[in-house]
Amino acid sequence: MKVAVFRKAHFNAAHRLYNKAWTEDKNNEVFGLCNNANWHGHNYELEVKLVGEVDPETGYVIDLKVLKDIIKQEVEERFDHKNLNLDCPEFASLNPTAENICVVIYDLLRAAIGDQYELQVRLYETPRNYVEYPA
Amino acid sequence: MKVAVFRKAHFNAAHRLYNKAWTEDKNNEVFGLCNNANWHGHNYELEVKLVGEVDPETGYVIDLKVLKDIIKQEVEERFDHKNLNLDCPEFASLNPTAENICVVIYDLLRAAIGDQYELQVRLYETPRNYVEYPA
Amino acid sequence: MKVAVFRKAHFNAAHRLYNKAWTEDKNNEVFGLCNNANWHGHNYELEVKLVGEVDPETGYVIDLKVLKDIIKQEVEERFDHKNLNLDCPEFASLNPTAENICVVIYDLLRAAIGDQYELQVRLYETPRNYVEYPA
Amino acid sequence: MKVAVFRKAHFNAAHRLYNKAWTEDKNNEVFGLCNNANWHGHNYELEVKLVGEVDPETGYVIDLKVLKDIIKQEVEERFDHKNLNLDCPEFASLNPTAENICVVIYDLLRAAIGDQYELQVRLYETPRNYVEYPA
Amino acid sequence: MKVAVFRKAHFNAAHRLYNKAWTEDKNNEVFGLCNNANWHGHNYELEVKLVGEVDPETGYVIDLKVLKDIIKQEVEERFDHKNLNLDCPEFASLNPTAENICVVIYDLLRAAIGDQYELQVRLYETPRNYVEYPA
Amino acid sequence: MKVAVFRKAHFNAAHRLYNKAWTEDKNNEVFGLCNNANWHGHNYELEVKLVGEVDPETGYVIDLKVLKDIIKQEVEERFDHKNLNLDCPEFASLNPTAENICVVIYDLLRAAIGDQYELQVRLYETPRNYVEYPA
Repeated sequence: MKVAVFRKAHFNAAHRLYNKAWTEDKNNEVFGLCNNANWHGHNYELEVKLVGEVDPETGYVIDLKVLKDIIKQEVEERFDHKNLNLDCPEFASLNPTAENICVVIYDLLRAAIGDQYELQVRLYETPRNYVEYPA
Repeated sequence: MKVAVFRKAHFNAAHRLYNKAWTEDKNNEVFGLCNNANWHGHNYELEVKLVGEVDPETGYVIDLKVLKDIIKQEVEERFDHKNLNLDCPEFASLNPTAENICVVIYDLLRAAIGDQYELQVRLYETPRNYVEYPA
Repeated sequence: MKVAVFRKAHFNAAHRLYNKAWTEDKNNEVFGLCNNANWHGHNYELEVKLVGEVDPETGYVIDLKVLKDIIKQEVEERFDHKNLNLDCPEFASLNPTAENICVVIYDLLRAAIGDQYELQVRLYETPRNYVEYPA
Repeated sequence: MKVAVFRKAHFNAAHRLYNKAWTEDKNNEVFGLCNNANWHGHNYELEVKLVGEVDPETGYVIDLKVLKDIIKQEVEERFDHKNLNLDCPEFASLNPTAENICVVIYDLLRAAIGDQYELQVRLYETPRNYVEYPA
Repeated sequence: MKVAVFRKAHFNAAHRLYNKAWTEDKNNEVFGLCNNANWHGHNYELEVKLVGEVDPETGYVIDLKVLKDIIKQEVEERFDHKNLNLDCPEFASLNPTAENICVVIYDLLRAAIGDQYELQVRLYETPRNYVEYPA
Repeated sequence: MKVAVFRKAHFNAAHRLYNKAWTEDKNNEVFGLCNNANWHGHNYELEVKLVGEVDPETGYVIDLKVLKDIIKQEVEERFDHKNLNLDCPEFASLNPTAENICVVIYDLLRAAIGDQYELQVRLYETPRNYVEYPA
């Protein structure tokens, strides 16, 4: 009997979207305001979904306090109040779009969460724009 | 590496639910208050989901400004501040239930968005009632 | 010891904004899309605030089930799934802007709620536009 | 043409998480504050999803008033303002975790809803913790 | 230059509404389902408002981390995952209605927050019912 | 007959909290993570409240499209996708705390909005922390 459990979290960060291999004009054309050289930022809202069997002794798929702590350690302490481009080696050569941040978070959590669980990550960059991985 | 991206939009419209082939009694029995001959209306909230590959050069599945503009042109300008039954040929012979509106919006967006993307549309008629297509 | 209590409610309605004394051009200039002759509509969200003394025997300012029923009778049954201009005598000669609807609801509730309570009404026409009376 | 329709509902209840077969120490270690012998409680928010064909005569997958009434009868009247452990035989020997409550609600609704519909239930225990069944 | 700052918090608790001086029939008549002898519960959402001068050196009215910690110590640790009637001496002889809980929280915070700040507390018992003190 | 009207808006920006007159240690002690030299950022949500007389000819306190455009010109175009400290002269010597940003926005809007209206500004820095001016 497989059930999905979800936990929400959040972090605030600065970023800038650009491709180092492109000219400034090309970057402005593609990324517009998101290419502000002085950075801008977001309140990122995160929803982590695990799918697994319900343990008959506890009635839990996973203790959500455990999942909360994993998210805190792997995501919030890493990215909260950071400049994603400057402070986070994950984005040293990876453009911190919502799509790429979401995949990075998935990879970080995938390594920290047991193989018995399926994992999916949803990331809100703004209340109107969000992404999900795997699709 | 497929990622889903979502964009929210909204429009306000009037409508009436009824089946022209039925008697007024049958329409009232099935559609109740929603069959008010003088119309009623809603704030429709829309969530459009695209699934596609992340472009390694931009880090985008799609530029969400592009998706925002497609939604504006295909959905908002067509349906916002309209009477769906009277003003919109899409519903000249189609009952504007949330289900039918959602499928119509899907078809409009499907024609405007490249085949490389999977598409799904969620439509909120009220904060407590909503629909999704394809299921 | 005065405490404020709030109760939320909602109704869906169609309306049209225009001034009968004006030309069609003037109405279009002032009210734009809101002057669609075929109507449009909204999900109106209502927040009713009462201020009063806490009854020492019940711990209530008012039984919120009582307030809920008053709102249902005075507001929801009157306006839900209606065309405000055509179906509601309150707006026969009053433009159903959010401001005017809010004041009408205040007057209806004021007559139904005891004088020992102060009353304030907030009305959301959309998630981004709302009004409050008295200010 | 299959469309998914969703209806939200809610109920408030008290519960306590523990395993009768365990010692009090083991229960406290696993369930922490959730094992308060004097109970605690939640506002449970419920989202019910049905997938089915759109009826060409009504434009409905299901009349949402019918679904609303089924949810009211099967879920709200059964669990609202109840102590899940003491008042509800469903949890006499089943730990009322969000996962187990969600599966119980699924089973109750599955028995009340026609086989032509696929069913999925999402249950929010808090705004940050929620579950979904089937996954 | 006075500015208001707000901080949200939450706690989950069980309670029962009744007046010990009344008969069971009178309690049922007045409090209905809220008088379940086996308790029910809520996710209480709290909004704390402080009004004060902006410190020209910090740009803060108060460091919101300080306010967050005060709320955690005075409210969350006291009431979270508790039975308000049984576990909390504040409600030993006070009916734990939203109104009374709000005033108790106000008094607890008022004693912990410096006199240079005006204080107001809003408490959501459900998303549709909430109270505020002082009014 | 005075009514309050509200309009919501939003902008995303990077910032850093620090006092140039202080040592780095003092800044870290007071502002903690908010003093990241590489910046961090937020989705700022704005609610603008105007109080005024309802115009008997239009039923409006103000045309909300006009207010929307004023907010766009005075706030969104000035601060959206900006680094408040580096890009915005308003914060060249003013710490961009939520309190100070809120007062700056009030002053910008006050200059753009007619004297017949009372004005109040609420600014959400995160969903849990927000400020209001005047208090």
